[in-house]
Amino acid sequence: MRVARLALPARSPAYATLDGETAALFDRAPWLGGTPTGEVVAWSEAMLLAPVEPSKIICVGRNYAAHAKELGHDLPAEPLLFFKPPSAIVGPGASVQMPSVSARVDHEAELTLVIGTRAKNLTLENALAHLAGTTAANDVTARDLQKKDGQWARAKGFDTFCPLGPWVDTRVDASFLGGLHVRCSVDGVERQHGRTADMIFDVAAVLVYVSSIFTLEPGDVILTGTPEGVAPLDHGASCTVLMEDADGTPVFSLTNRFLRS
Amino acid sequence: MRVARLALPARSPAYATLDGETAALFDRAPWLGGTPTGEVVAWSEAMLLAPVEPSKIICVGRNYAAHAKELGHDLPAEPLLFFKPPSAIVGPGASVQMPSVSARVDHEAELTLVIGTRAKNLTLENALAHLAGTTAANDVTARDLQKKDGQWARAKGFDTFCPLGPWVDTRVDASFLGGLHVRCSVDGVERQHGRTADMIFDVAAVLVYVSSIFTLEPGDVILTGTPEGVAPLDHGASCTVLMEDADGTPVFSLTNRFLRS
Repeated sequence: MRVARLALPARSPAYATLDGETAALFDRAPWLGGTPTGEVVAWSEAMLLAPVEPSKIICVGRNYAAHAKELGHDLPAEPLLFFKPPSAIVGPGASVQMPSVSARVDHEAELTLVIGTRAKNLTLENALAHLAGTTAANDVTARDLQKKDGQWARAKGFDTFCPLGPWVDTRVDASFLGGLHVRCSVDGVERQHGRTADMIFDVAAVLVYVSSIFTLEPGDVILTGTPEGVAPLDHGASCTVLMEDADGTPVFSLTNRFLRS
Repeated sequence: MRVARLALPARSPAYATLDGETAALFDRAPWLGGTPTGEVVAWSEAMLLAPVEPSKIICVGRNYAAHAKELGHDLPAEPLLFFKPPSAIVGPGASVQMPSVSARVDHEAELTLVIGTRAKNLTLENALAHLAGTTAANDVTARDLQKKDGQWARAKGFDTFCPLGPWVDTRVDASFLGGLHVRCSVDGVERQHGRTADMIFDVAAVLVYVSSIFTLEPGDVILTGTPEGVAPLDHGASCTVLMEDADGTPVFSLTNRFLRS
């Protein structure tokens, strides 16, 4: 099932489940106890907002060996965590504003976990049951500032630096999550391609580690790291994060245009 | 004026302004457009919750020269920023749980800014006008994990690692903000004492820098860094962050007990 958040004319945005060309509206996010209102509307891509409103955005760094290597790092013994702020979130189709203080803004395509129920100290056995589903993210990064600052809050946290969407896919079985292709293309040319099977810490291991530190709230998101192939974006570039299941069937396609002021 | 958030018997917590022994309840946070409900109740210290519910917690590292030096760092040319997650917040009187994975958990007393109105790209001239006020924070830090991880998300982000309170003081003039004493005592013995006048980046400069990166939302908080004297806490320690104005009049007193599992 696909859960989206829709911009609606002359009223507040609404969560909805998508079925073909129709959307069944909810009174709030399903993971916050929302239920269908009974109203069904036609939806279009232009109506899709970021499908989550998290209280925190937790990110895993260097979770694919080839990407850690391309940035010159050893493999981590534990997941390396950092945060992006909710103010960085934009939805599908929104512009990413590249700040003038950075000379190099990179794309990073990432499978993103959406928490379904409040969670602390999860185990490998129960972790996946606490997911509402997954979505796609572009962990936009000012690479020069990341190196300069040491802490990554600024380089990863500018407004518009966290495109999310286009929807939450509610399949959370280990074979689906472990078999995804994570791709990124810029102006139609593929730049990144990895498989979630190549994560150093898989989805369940990430959930166990993260929930040993932080209480996870429904709607919180975890970006699970990016495969190799990160590269800078020019003014006007169109960047698409694409995910496919193990059979090559598309799951997510998240496109944003990158603009310099 | 003092704005607090009160736990109320058999109903939801409420924002309130405090006047002596009475509290005038609000329908929501004043910085979210809340207004008095007309109800006035007697309040006690036991009712005080963390006085803010921020969408993000931005922290400034190494903002006092003597503290940067005690940790062996050069003075920063720009504010060094990191985040704590909202799940780390606890109020006055709450316990701080020291995790078993850390052998050294330190106190860090910090003046904390509370945003009053949405803000981006503030200037030195208009920055203070966007504040709702200030409160006190203890930027609790697992010092060993801070060094081990490189990124500070885990070391600074454990549940209960962000005591805030006891209330928001709405005075936001530069002379008040620049004249505060920031103190921390453990079991009655003073461990930290600095003055906000000794900040490398003062309150207005911090607001200008932070708002050049992130859109600040009403109720967001900025922890402005800690003076020298950080030190580890033992099981059962009672730690008080104390602030006084330039005349030595108490402004905030925030006490939390530190416990090992």
